[in-house]
Amino acid sequence: MVIFANSNWRKPTIRTLDRPSIFLAGAVSSLLLLWAFFFFSTFDPKPTSCKCSQPDPAFDLQFDPPISTFYDDPSFGYTIDTPIQNWDQKRKSWLKIHPSFEPKSHDRVLIVTGTRSTPCASPTGDHYLLRFYRNKVDYCRIHGYDIFYNNVLLDPEMPSCWAKIPTVRAAMVAHPEAEWIWWMDEDAAFTDMEYKIPFHRYKDYNFVVHGWPKEVYEKKSWLGLNAGSFLIRNCQWSLEFLERWADMGPPSPNYEKWTNVLLNEFKHNNDDQTALAYLLLMEHQKWYGKKMLIETGYSIEGYWVAIVDTLNDISKKYLEVETSTGMLRRRHAEKVRELYGLLREPSLKDVGNEFVSWRRPFVTHFAGCQPCNGKHNPTFSKESCEDGMNKALNFGDNQVLRNYGFVHRNLSDSSVVSRLPFDYPA
Amino acid sequence: MVIFANSNWRKPTIRTLDRPSIFLAGAVSSLLLLWAFFFFSTFDPKPTSCKCSQPDPAFDLQFDPPISTFYDDPSFGYTIDTPIQNWDQKRKSWLKIHPSFEPKSHDRVLIVTGTRSTPCASPTGDHYLLRFYRNKVDYCRIHGYDIFYNNVLLDPEMPSCWAKIPTVRAAMVAHPEAEWIWWMDEDAAFTDMEYKIPFHRYKDYNFVVHGWPKEVYEKKSWLGLNAGSFLIRNCQWSLEFLERWADMGPPSPNYEKWTNVLLNEFKHNNDDQTALAYLLLMEHQKWYGKKMLIETGYSIEGYWVAIVDTLNDISKKYLEVETSTGMLRRRHAEKVRELYGLLREPSLKDVGNEFVSWRRPFVTHFAGCQPCNGKHNPTFSKESCEDGMNKALNFGDNQVLRNYGFVHRNLSDSSVVSRLPFDYPA
Repeated sequence: MVIFANSNWRKPTIRTLDRPSIFLAGAVSSLLLLWAFFFFSTFDPKPTSCKCSQPDPAFDLQFDPPISTFYDDPSFGYTIDTPIQNWDQKRKSWLKIHPSFEPKSHDRVLIVTGTRSTPCASPTGDHYLLRFYRNKVDYCRIHGYDIFYNNVLLDPEMPSCWAKIPTVRAAMVAHPEAEWIWWMDEDAAFTDMEYKIPFHRYKDYNFVVHGWPKEVYEKKSWLGLNAGSFLIRNCQWSLEFLERWADMGPPSPNYEKWTNVLLNEFKHNNDDQTALAYLLLMEHQKWYGKKMLIETGYSIEGYWVAIVDTLNDISKKYLEVETSTGMLRRRHAEKVRELYGLLREPSLKDVGNEFVSWRRPFVTHFAGCQPCNGKHNPTFSKESCEDGMNKALNFGDNQVLRNYGFVHRNLSDSSVVSRLPFDYPA
Repeated sequence: MVIFANSNWRKPTIRTLDRPSIFLAGAVSSLLLLWAFFFFSTFDPKPTSCKCSQPDPAFDLQFDPPISTFYDDPSFGYTIDTPIQNWDQKRKSWLKIHPSFEPKSHDRVLIVTGTRSTPCASPTGDHYLLRFYRNKVDYCRIHGYDIFYNNVLLDPEMPSCWAKIPTVRAAMVAHPEAEWIWWMDEDAAFTDMEYKIPFHRYKDYNFVVHGWPKEVYEKKSWLGLNAGSFLIRNCQWSLEFLERWADMGPPSPNYEKWTNVLLNEFKHNNDDQTALAYLLLMEHQKWYGKKMLIETGYSIEGYWVAIVDTLNDISKKYLEVETSTGMLRRRHAEKVRELYGLLREPSLKDVGNEFVSWRRPFVTHFAGCQPCNGKHNPTFSKESCEDGMNKALNFGDNQVLRNYGFVHRNLSDSSVVSRLPFDYPA
């Protein structure tokens, strides 16, 4: 080091420096030595690797500390008639003491669906329900979501279309790690396995349902929205909303009153969907209703009649895109499918969404087909419903099967699949 | 600092210290200052927190680097007739470049199941298949496993009981992140939602099936094991094993030869289970067969006839345990259910497993009931099968429903549930 050098040209030495300079020299030397030590002892050819102990990239399913939470409160309940206060704070506290669930909790989803507990009246009913359920499980597997399928009446006084309310309520408190509960009817299927809910659009909302605002707010049509697929945030507002919604339903002492109101306003019977439309109509301009959104940007619930005959053409369009974009034909593990959805987006950015768009419809809902009880809307035939369901389910299935090396060449044939050759798009 | 002190008793000063000492003093001072700086600037009341950038506790579903893997090899295939070499190395390489999947990969499970693509012939068939599937999905949700349900014939020449082989083969290569593929028949249900496969017992094995070794090796009984539920490690050995197993099946040119061999040796037709028993019989003492285990320690596949009438008594026993152990009655999020399974174990350590044990049977398999085609073994009636399935499915369902605040009080009644009061065991 410089300080200890000694040469003919009288370099500074410890003997010639003044005392403060020597002190400073000592300080600098020690810092240099320290730096050199840490640099070489921690040198990592992969400088981005973290030297700390990494958490496992998974939830800790075996950690529930003996610290009191809302679960330990005797007054806490899973049902509408056991109201909860301060749910936001309770959830937050739960996440804090279960830190493995905290990261990415802000858009974590639990899909909830359900059906009756007894066999369907229609001979093919349960077969289709099984396939609709399998379709939902496939979507969840690709995107890392959980799904809960309920097939018992949690409140015998809330049967049929109302049964979703107690189910969602129970699921919210059984899953404090979930930010969103996504209810989907038994007869709704994913027809775009890659598309993801744009949660960033919903930071100011707690309830999202598909529909047409004018139809609800101006025309007072009960068909202006569809309660077959909706998002509800797991929060205090939502607990109270569910209470209000249930208050319009069968077990409520106000049921008759609301039935008359809905007949008057919407010219329709009192069911969960008409009640929902009414709540939106009454509340959408008040602070409470501003948390509710009628989504028009994409088909979080798409009507099958407008969709099923477009699926073959959509398949061809996607094939054209994949033919010109090698990366989209690349084989990959199913678990990284999301990346390929992102890679596909640039080719879809100008195609719009929903009607007159050749983008895959997100969710196709067979409203009116009633596959389980068979009492379909007389506007369509059982055959057209079943043909539509086959097409939609096989269309969705193709997006899964390709990860296993196969494809339905004919969307109407649920039994036959062909091998997908290497580098050949579906 | 000491060096700069000046007092009447002539403390050492910079003027009085010799030069080397001054140098050393400068070095020590700078180190002390540096230590003090880092200590106070990084002081963390939670000293266990890692200062490095934490990975998200989840898989990175959007990361698939443009680095060549086995998927990019045109000769790689999803089917038995496209053999793969060096699969262990290929999987290892894939995991290395997808590091979010690497931790805990050594016992990661993918459950694979499946059924026909057309409606069941039995009017209640699909209803039960739906419930069996829902049961499996519940188990997976609790334990963080993925599940793939296949309902197409991937090889038309391997129908019926043989269809599992091409399905497992495709699933292995679609899921390189999975260490184990667990095949489960459509009519097998989890009746212990807490129990976990003891993978630590299988480090030397690649294939695990339930059975009785003597029945297979000595009595040559095709019922000495059951191919309705088995574990197969996702490795090269297993790929080759599947080829050997498939070689005994319908599309193989050796099918007739093996059919005669099996009739001779096992006095039974050539099906997947008899073929499997034969492979074990022939190989179990050779190096190849030493990788195969007939598990007798717990019911990875339990015969329903021996189980369903014990379920009520088992429920009562578990209730007794929970009555005396408050922690087991504690409500909790479904996601941390595994902990409560662990907390229960001390009370079960002496109860044994399988027969004459009151431990919940792990998996109950309705072999011989044929719920889908209705062609049940004439030894039992359709009613006894359906009653058994209801009991087993509701028994499993109770262990899920309690996390949502409900319980079936009557195992034979699939429709009615009651609220589970606070602090009251199921």
